[in-house]
Amino acid sequence: GIFLLSFTSFVHSSVSNFDFVGGHPRLVFNASGVDETKSHLGAVPLFDASLEQTRKMVDAEMELGIDVPLPKDFSGGYSHERHKRNYIVAQKAGQLFLLLGDEKYAIYIRDMLLQYASIYNDLPLHPKERSYARGKLFWQCLNDSNWLLYMAQAYDAIYSWLPSEQTQTLNTNLFRPFADFISLENPQFFNRIHNHSAWGNAAVGMIGLVMSDEELVERALFGLQDDGIKINAKDNDGGFIKKPGQVTGFIANLEEPFSPDGYYTEGPYYQRYAMYPFLIFAVAMNNVLPDFEVLEYKDGVLFSAVHALLSLTDHNGEFFPLNDAQKGMSVQSASLVSAVNLAYYYGDRDPALLSVVEKQGAVMLNQAGMSAAIAIRDGQTAPYPRTSIHLTDGADGKQGGISVLRDDQAKLDLVFKYTAHGLSHGHYDKLGISVFHAGQEVLQDYGLVRFVNIEEKGGGNYLPENTTWAKQTIAHNTLVLNEKSHFAGDYAVGSQNHSDLYFTGGDASIQIVSAKETNAYEDTELHRTVAIVKKPDLLRPYIVDLYRVSSAKKNQYDLPFYYQGQMIDSSMNVRVPESLIALGKGSGYQHLYVEGSARSSSESESFTWLYGHRFYSLVQASEQDDQRLFVRLGASDPEFNLRRDPGMIWRKENAKSAVFASVLEAHGSYSPVLEMSKDAERNIDRLITLHNDQEFTALKIIYKNSIKPDVLVVANKAAGESKFHSLEIDGVNYRWQGPFLFQPIEG
Amino acid sequence: GIFLLSFTSFVHSSVSNFDFVGGHPRLVFNASGVDETKSHLGAVPLFDASLEQTRKMVDAEMELGIDVPLPKDFSGGYSHERHKRNYIVAQKAGQLFLLLGDEKYAIYIRDMLLQYASIYNDLPLHPKERSYARGKLFWQCLNDSNWLLYMAQAYDAIYSWLPSEQTQTLNTNLFRPFADFISLENPQFFNRIHNHSAWGNAAVGMIGLVMSDEELVERALFGLQDDGIKINAKDNDGGFIKKPGQVTGFIANLEEPFSPDGYYTEGPYYQRYAMYPFLIFAVAMNNVLPDFEVLEYKDGVLFSAVHALLSLTDHNGEFFPLNDAQKGMSVQSASLVSAVNLAYYYGDRDPALLSVVEKQGAVMLNQAGMSAAIAIRDGQTAPYPRTSIHLTDGADGKQGGISVLRDDQAKLDLVFKYTAHGLSHGHYDKLGISVFHAGQEVLQDYGLVRFVNIEEKGGGNYLPENTTWAKQTIAHNTLVLNEKSHFAGDYAVGSQNHSDLYFTGGDASIQIVSAKETNAYEDTELHRTVAIVKKPDLLRPYIVDLYRVSSAKKNQYDLPFYYQGQMIDSSMNVRVPESLIALGKGSGYQHLYVEGSARSSSESESFTWLYGHRFYSLVQASEQDDQRLFVRLGASDPEFNLRRDPGMIWRKENAKSAVFASVLEAHGSYSPVLEMSKDAERNIDRLITLHNDQEFTALKIIYKNSIKPDVLVVANKAAGESKFHSLEIDGVNYRWQGPFLFQPIEG
Ligand SMILES: [Ca+2]
Ligand SMILES: [Ca+2]
Ligand SMILES: [Ca+2]
Ligand SMILES: [Mg+2]
Ligand SMILES: [Mg+2]
Ligand SMILES: [Mg+2]
Ligand SMILES: [Mg+2]
Repeated sequence: GIFLLSFTSFVHSSVSNFDFVGGHPRLVFNASGVDETKSHLGAVPLFDASLEQTRKMVDAEMELGIDVPLPKDFSGGYSHERHKRNYIVAQKAGQLFLLLGDEKYAIYIRDMLLQYASIYNDLPLHPKERSYARGKLFWQCLNDSNWLLYMAQAYDAIYSWLPSEQTQTLNTNLFRPFADFISLENPQFFNRIHNHSAWGNAAVGMIGLVMSDEELVERALFGLQDDGIKINAKDNDGGFIKKPGQVTGFIANLEEPFSPDGYYTEGPYYQRYAMYPFLIFAVAMNNVLPDFEVLEYKDGVLFSAVHALLSLTDHNGEFFPLNDAQKGMSVQSASLVSAVNLAYYYGDRDPALLSVVEKQGAVMLNQAGMSAAIAIRDGQTAPYPRTSIHLTDGADGKQGGISVLRDDQAKLDLVFKYTAHGLSHGHYDKLGISVFHAGQEVLQDYGLVRFVNIEEKGGGNYLPENTTWAKQTIAHNTLVLNEKSHFAGDYAVGSQNHSDLYFTGGDASIQIVSAKETNAYEDTELHRTVAIVKKPDLLRPYIVDLYRVSSAKKNQYDLPFYYQGQMIDSSMNVRVPESLIALGKGSGYQHLYVEGSARSSSESESFTWLYGHRFYSLVQASEQDDQRLFVRLGASDPEFNLRRDPGMIWRKENAKSAVFASVLEAHGSYSPVLEMSKDAERNIDRLITLHNDQEFTALKIIYKNSIKPDVLVVANKAAGESKFHSLEIDGVNYRWQGPFLFQPIEG
Repeated sequence: GIFLLSFTSFVHSSVSNFDFVGGHPRLVFNASGVDETKSHLGAVPLFDASLEQTRKMVDAEMELGIDVPLPKDFSGGYSHERHKRNYIVAQKAGQLFLLLGDEKYAIYIRDMLLQYASIYNDLPLHPKERSYARGKLFWQCLNDSNWLLYMAQAYDAIYSWLPSEQTQTLNTNLFRPFADFISLENPQFFNRIHNHSAWGNAAVGMIGLVMSDEELVERALFGLQDDGIKINAKDNDGGFIKKPGQVTGFIANLEEPFSPDGYYTEGPYYQRYAMYPFLIFAVAMNNVLPDFEVLEYKDGVLFSAVHALLSLTDHNGEFFPLNDAQKGMSVQSASLVSAVNLAYYYGDRDPALLSVVEKQGAVMLNQAGMSAAIAIRDGQTAPYPRTSIHLTDGADGKQGGISVLRDDQAKLDLVFKYTAHGLSHGHYDKLGISVFHAGQEVLQDYGLVRFVNIEEKGGGNYLPENTTWAKQTIAHNTLVLNEKSHFAGDYAVGSQNHSDLYFTGGDASIQIVSAKETNAYEDTELHRTVAIVKKPDLLRPYIVDLYRVSSAKKNQYDLPFYYQGQMIDSSMNVRVPESLIALGKGSGYQHLYVEGSARSSSESESFTWLYGHRFYSLVQASEQDDQRLFVRLGASDPEFNLRRDPGMIWRKENAKSAVFASVLEAHGSYSPVLEMSKDAERNIDRLITLHNDQEFTALKIIYKNSIKPDVLVVANKAAGESKFHSLEIDGVNYRWQGPFLFQPIEG
């Protein structure tokens, strides 16, 4: 069974059982794992294929000979990529040595490590000065930590093969100074709550495990006791390095950013990156110092984290681009291969994980990978469930959360974000939504403005437009007041606040979730309710989006919808300007051109577009003089860093309270080969706001083809499941229990 | 052997042998074909699968019952789509009846035809008035012809099963009046050289073959002798309906638009559409009236045409979007299934065609489809060669042509168009190029501005921007003088002229083609030479583009490059404006915004972009003050009909003679999962114009990594293979034979 350790029981002073288990190898691929794995070689197709592929790759690299160049470049440049390749190849060579027994792999690792040992102590700081924590081999300590975490595994593989004088030399001249450098000499990197530190902690701990170095393992687990860092110092992404009373080290990095549900507050893109150090080091601790029970920490949160991560993907296995996130990153990523393999083997052997392993098409070269490959061979794979989920955020699960509503058959994913800020990579996107259909973005979150590892674009680093555009509220499908971002775009304030879940619910015909945000703007409540409706008499499900705002004073409200593709039809009369000028002066508005605008003349307006050969429509309950701005990204972009993506902004002016109600429908596809549309007719005809006050908001959803209309009512002030409500609309008295009502309108 | 008939021997009066062969069925799937096909049923996987799929589709349609609605809608609307579906299903039901012997299929066809017969004679013209030739069932006679060509086949399948009173009724009340309506009553549709007429001719001929109606077959083959159409009348696309001395009918439509190489002057998109009537009727003639030798006409041009069409595709099998063409149309199209099956069976059983059939994954339900499916089953498939081709244009092959230079290994296709205008669907794109890499457009031709069969966009018809943008020269990767399109955008002039091939050549390291255009602008010669270079010491091939212009007076020259994706780097200092305004006032310039501009400061400039995770660079031999305009489509577009695609326009002002020399390199790929670039470094460092006068233009291509530079010299006035040339550059005397020299520069 899983054993829960509370954080306070885990403090430094209480631990004394440093009984390093066994000889070497001992980390993840330990002696018993090697025996176990070797006994199945040649009989497990997926493992054998992964082994063969790795062998070819490593052999080809070894043919080129070893190169340990002087550190010089940013990522993308030669010295950076060579050092990176070195640690990746060495770690794999270690596995090959243990599995195949060919000494050439051990010799390769040894010679490479000796070359590093020969230069390390004389290396100055890396010549590139951009980082708040410069490394020695790389421009930032983060990459030096990557190196150490991988090299520790290569070193562990050959440790008992090496003569003890050589381990002595390597321990003293390379690894201990290396570990001290990224920890003692860089507390601003090592001693924080951040994915950077998770890497640093794990790397230092890992080499400590190899060398049986208690001091390093302690430092890794519990951080530096006196780091001398000033409270409220910031890194070069603007993130805080130290908060008052901050506890640090690996355990604290496990405690704080993960919610009890396994949601990582930085979001899936950074979680994917951090899962590797978290899991690799936790498993190594499990194998070498099992009494610490690191893997069981916080009710086995690392296993929940793998499931949370797999849930935050579209139908192509790509992670939802929340916060700073590069699009296209997916479960195919190497760090997900290890995460899923380790969660399978050290967790509860969930057969649904095997379907992910199959999609990945490769396994780790150790007992975890072998066990998954055997299970797949033996036909144990089960599909990974793509159901709706609600994940809490915050160490205690009390800082809001994130929901994904799904209709798996229709390949629909609706992401609704009511989390905390997400540390320094967070965006000002409270109550933002994004929508995916068959893995295609229907309403997009822009992602980040960065060309990761493309040297020509600002050295592959975050570009200025990441701050001036991507993080701003107007870059998201959520409400902006008076052209200012949430929390006025102030990280110090935003990072102290979070939204709150209001209710979730549903039945066979509707899945619904509602959340509120009361801190983003002064004296203003934002309240958004989203749902997926699936009715037996309609061909397909649709999405309801009910966004209610109430404020103490009059404001301008902007609600963007970042559709993609080509406008096909609109119920509105869109006027286009002669020349394009920026929509505003700051908060991201300076990056938007206005290509067209329209004023509502009807209580229900519609807008249809074509994207990726599919049709999508928004039908919106509208008011006289509501404005729609058809915008295009690209203004104030001197380096052409931004994609020229379109959006539609729904604007209401001079309103205290307002309702933005939309339904979104994916309807039909177009084949350029057949030159025919299929199922292209919309189901939703119109959407009407029936009622709106402090107590209730009610919508009427009117269908085509004489299907009975539905009413959706949300109770704005009482989310209790058992609370009774009644409301009279158009002479009909509706009575129900719970925070919402969804039913056909009779007569 | 194939027998060549000259057109003059084929005139109406010389033919008298109307010996209709056999009973019914007699057209393509004739009695012997049915026997042959049935004998293999159940033993040929691809055929059996196609049969099963068709059976399911037809059975499902039959369940719905027959509906013959009153004609009312444009394409996309119900009545249109229903009538279209009727003829498609009926034709397939005919095949099923013949193959499976189940009378329900015959009854379905009979009942449907009787319903049509009961309404046809009272039908007025279709209520939609847009067409120059309105149909009765559809808004244009073209669709009525589609109906007749398919229904003739359905009718043929049940002809001998029907009691003769019923064939009498159908012949008299439906088919003969139907055929007369689209021919005698619509000579402006039937009696021209155009894909519309090819459909009309084939439809009338086909039903004539079924009914043994000599008059209809004669009319189909040789047109209406006295049509009463005025010379120079135009259709609603602006195409001429009748030229002086015009010969008409199916044979003339076979003679004129196809070059001896099988290139169809309207381009592959319309050829794909026209191949169906051409081949189906030619094969039916072959089976029913073999003495006419229609299939052998013009040295078997219909078979060459199928090969020409298959050659005009990118690596995904999608047709190059030349002239008015919707992108995405591919060899998967149903009309290509029949074209390839028939070319295989009635042609020389080329095993390379089988690889196309395999990709299509379906075969015709007749002896042609069966024969291909058997050959595939028996492992006879050979790969379809993707080599460079040069196709002539014009009935006599003397109206220019089109070249595709290829490197199959690198998946590179370079399309170079020096054709005639291409009838009413032609664009003003003399010497235009487009480039494809792995099926992705690197330098695009915009295609058409039309949302085919999407009713909401102008009824699915050509939109105004097709004329104001897509047809204009500035919409293409070719030279524009003084912001005016070729031939001043005048169809009457453009359609009288064509470019000319200057030379083709090459060896293992270079494939090269050169063409000239002397009519597009007064007193001006446009001369473009393009090449693919593949050197053993470079990782990958690259493209050379040498565009030379000489004019009697000074002009402004604009050469656009319609790249796609995101700008990564430029050697130039690009300035961006505060607001976006249109580049010009007409000829397509009114649709382009200028997002940035730069002036050259170096003799070689470069520009790199990222598209579909791949890197591309243009390196250009430049002159002081050359301008680059970074443009974005979308100005003057009130209905949002245009894609917001980017382009880079290279502008030279106040020049008589000028050289625009570029190399284009696809270099490396970027993985968003690995976050790594592969092979991203460019091979080409710089490009210099060494020499340019009336006689010679010489380029120096300078590589990175100390590879010896190359020189490329083109002789501008003598294309002869045997002609000797000499030229001194930088003290080196180059001597060579033939129109070009490509070799390393020594020393
Ligand atoms: Ca609050
Ligand atoms: Ca001429
Ligand atoms: Ca630059
Ligand atoms: Mg965002
Ligand atoms: Mg996706
Ligand atoms: Mg074109
Ligand atoms: Mg393509």
